[in-house]
Amino acid sequence: MASVDVPVALLGYGTVGASVNRLLTDQVDDIERATGHRLRVVKALVRDLGKERRWPAPDGVLTTSIDEVVGDPSIAVVAEVMGGVEPTGGYVLECLRRGKHVVTANKQLVARRGAELFQAASDAGVQLRFEASVCAAIPVIKVLRESLVVTNVHRVLGIVNGTTNYMLTEMESGKTYDEALSDAQEKGYAEADPTDDVSGADAAAKMAILATVAFNSRYELADVDVVGIDKIDPLTIAAARELEMVIRLIGAARLVDGKVDVRVGPALVDRHHPLAAVEGAFNAVMLQGDAIREITLEGPGAGGIETASAVIADMVSVIGTMDTGFLQNDAAWRSLPRLTPGEHRSPYYFNLKVDDRPGVLARVAEALAERDVSIARLLQHPNGEGAALHVVTHEAREGSLKEALAAITAFAEVRKAPVAFPVVSERGVAELGWA
Amino acid sequence: MASVDVPVALLGYGTVGASVNRLLTDQVDDIERATGHRLRVVKALVRDLGKERRWPAPDGVLTTSIDEVVGDPSIAVVAEVMGGVEPTGGYVLECLRRGKHVVTANKQLVARRGAELFQAASDAGVQLRFEASVCAAIPVIKVLRESLVVTNVHRVLGIVNGTTNYMLTEMESGKTYDEALSDAQEKGYAEADPTDDVSGADAAAKMAILATVAFNSRYELADVDVVGIDKIDPLTIAAARELEMVIRLIGAARLVDGKVDVRVGPALVDRHHPLAAVEGAFNAVMLQGDAIREITLEGPGAGGIETASAVIADMVSVIGTMDTGFLQNDAAWRSLPRLTPGEHRSPYYFNLKVDDRPGVLARVAEALAERDVSIARLLQHPNGEGAALHVVTHEAREGSLKEALAAITAFAEVRKAPVAFPVVSERGVAELGWA
Repeated sequence: MASVDVPVALLGYGTVGASVNRLLTDQVDDIERATGHRLRVVKALVRDLGKERRWPAPDGVLTTSIDEVVGDPSIAVVAEVMGGVEPTGGYVLECLRRGKHVVTANKQLVARRGAELFQAASDAGVQLRFEASVCAAIPVIKVLRESLVVTNVHRVLGIVNGTTNYMLTEMESGKTYDEALSDAQEKGYAEADPTDDVSGADAAAKMAILATVAFNSRYELADVDVVGIDKIDPLTIAAARELEMVIRLIGAARLVDGKVDVRVGPALVDRHHPLAAVEGAFNAVMLQGDAIREITLEGPGAGGIETASAVIADMVSVIGTMDTGFLQNDAAWRSLPRLTPGEHRSPYYFNLKVDDRPGVLARVAEALAERDVSIARLLQHPNGEGAALHVVTHEAREGSLKEALAAITAFAEVRKAPVAFPVVSERGVAELGWA
Repeated sequence: MASVDVPVALLGYGTVGASVNRLLTDQVDDIERATGHRLRVVKALVRDLGKERRWPAPDGVLTTSIDEVVGDPSIAVVAEVMGGVEPTGGYVLECLRRGKHVVTANKQLVARRGAELFQAASDAGVQLRFEASVCAAIPVIKVLRESLVVTNVHRVLGIVNGTTNYMLTEMESGKTYDEALSDAQEKGYAEADPTDDVSGADAAAKMAILATVAFNSRYELADVDVVGIDKIDPLTIAAARELEMVIRLIGAARLVDGKVDVRVGPALVDRHHPLAAVEGAFNAVMLQGDAIREITLEGPGAGGIETASAVIADMVSVIGTMDTGFLQNDAAWRSLPRLTPGEHRSPYYFNLKVDDRPGVLARVAEALAERDVSIARLLQHPNGEGAALHVVTHEAREGSLKEALAAITAFAEVRKAPVAFPVVSERGVAELGWA
């Protein structure tokens, strides 16, 4: 097959953009063997032409004018690697409208303005791909859309934020929250202002995108129920160890009886669950579906070169499928209702700091039983002058658990309102029979 | 986009074939949304038309004549799910020559006759895809070929046989080899004749395919160095636990200084390594490369419906890319030399049963040191009337280790020739710095 040159443009030439240019240059032969095309960066939009760059662009490539990108009819594919929602969103929209395929690494853009962008792509008959927007080089979007097309994925469980996973693994080894945070900042995993990571907001954007692709129904950032990692105390970490569990910030998207629930929050994960083995700044996503039981993808969830690798994989997929109609459509073709708040079901963990008096445990157990919440495991330890109770429930209705905890908090013996965390233990593997 | 009917044919209508037909029927709308095409099974080659089937084919679909498949010009895609090397290989070849894209689930066919089949596909300008031939629904071929196109994968580590992984996990919990085997047979994981699994031959075929795709150089079954799991004794299992390791049957394909080494055999895996977390009949493949550090894919590596899901994913990919030239070429475009036997380097574990006399350890240590093999960890336990020495070495040249072990075996104090197993602990993540 004759090789065909494909001029591509970058929006942004920071760490990711420069890495894209470098990989495209170094690996041009590999790409040609896979696609029959030679990709070449001809324009890269930047704010400052004079800035020094680790991997400089050839003369004439850098430009400060978006018109030089959108107005150049030879450019077939544009990679958006500049970040931010504005003016980025407007630029992407304009590229799509002008008939250019777009590949983006921008989770905020996809999670906030996905509907509008996919509509524009569809109207113009071009593709909008976004593998790099979720977990960098871990190819979870491609696997969901292409490999699992007939598997009815009904659950996505993920560790999709490396910063908090690093902090939680360090806290397990004995560090305090503050020590783990400054350690993460020193190592470059956490920003000076870590809010986006520790609040769960970053993970929520990724889970919104994953839920949209997995269930074919649009979820935006605002639809995700989020709890950060700041409510985890040393008592909980010690109890998790005793219960043979670890604490992870888990994103969970579930399709239950045609309704969808998407949330991000700390959870206790059974030591034998694959997500418990994810340590340090790594990410992992577990996909559960009818035909596959479960498939877990693990890898580095961030990094300039890793993200660039995913951007190029998307470009290669665009080149390989353009003009065939394959996957240029929006993943969200239906609109599924949300699960009613409180109707979510899960096993839960919570701890109580109580006065060590006769009858406390009986009252707690009764408050739970009255609301159909049954206790699966219980630990009691002395705690200062009182006692700490650690409770793991069987699967319970979230609303019922909250009511029970509200009632328990009102007891005179209870010193502090308890916080409950879901427990992750079930797998998509009830029976591993060879068919 | 207007929907287009695509007639497909199956070679074979056993568990996998019937599952393919069922999934194609049930999920026809999902496939149309992804590809714009409706796939319909119009012919399925079987040996016995009258056999009762769990998911019967519609009237007129089953046929005993290959000519009805290859001679029908309307059939665009053929899925080979009959297994075996002959007559299967001849049928596949004929389908390709007649211009039909082929999807196969047959690892023996790809590992033994890959070169010839890919050449025929290339000559006819059609695709030959084989995702289901390795680890069923785990999309490792697609990820290697499409997502990791620019990452220079230099190492593939895999647990690619569920039967032996199940047996090894059971042996860790205290079962003997024979108990674990009959347990696996009862559960349907192992055949009545388990040779293909326990000898490592099944894993070797998969590793040959993975090495070919990862390094773009052809490896056939005969090129793989194979050791089975029958040499693992209870002493080794107990020592592994004490060393905080587990024993797994590991397939390893490495590209070192432009030379390739592919092998399958038992290894001791550090408890914190992602492959140590793979339990029971699951499979996992870890891909290490320049731009991605490492990505691990885990899931069920066998099963009728899981394999069918992968077959359909390949069909969908064919439909989405046919006539674009994308990936219809052979993955093996170069021919890399094999690593010289003995030149392979790894940390190793071995144990020695010795007479408990002064000076034994000194002689062992000297025999190792003389050949540049240095000891990283050492355990000594009483063993019957003698002692058992457990040795973990630093990275050593395989040939040097073998020479040292031969010398040690000749010592009067050594009661039995030792067996050495490689140790897997390093990861592709020396530094997890955000770029």
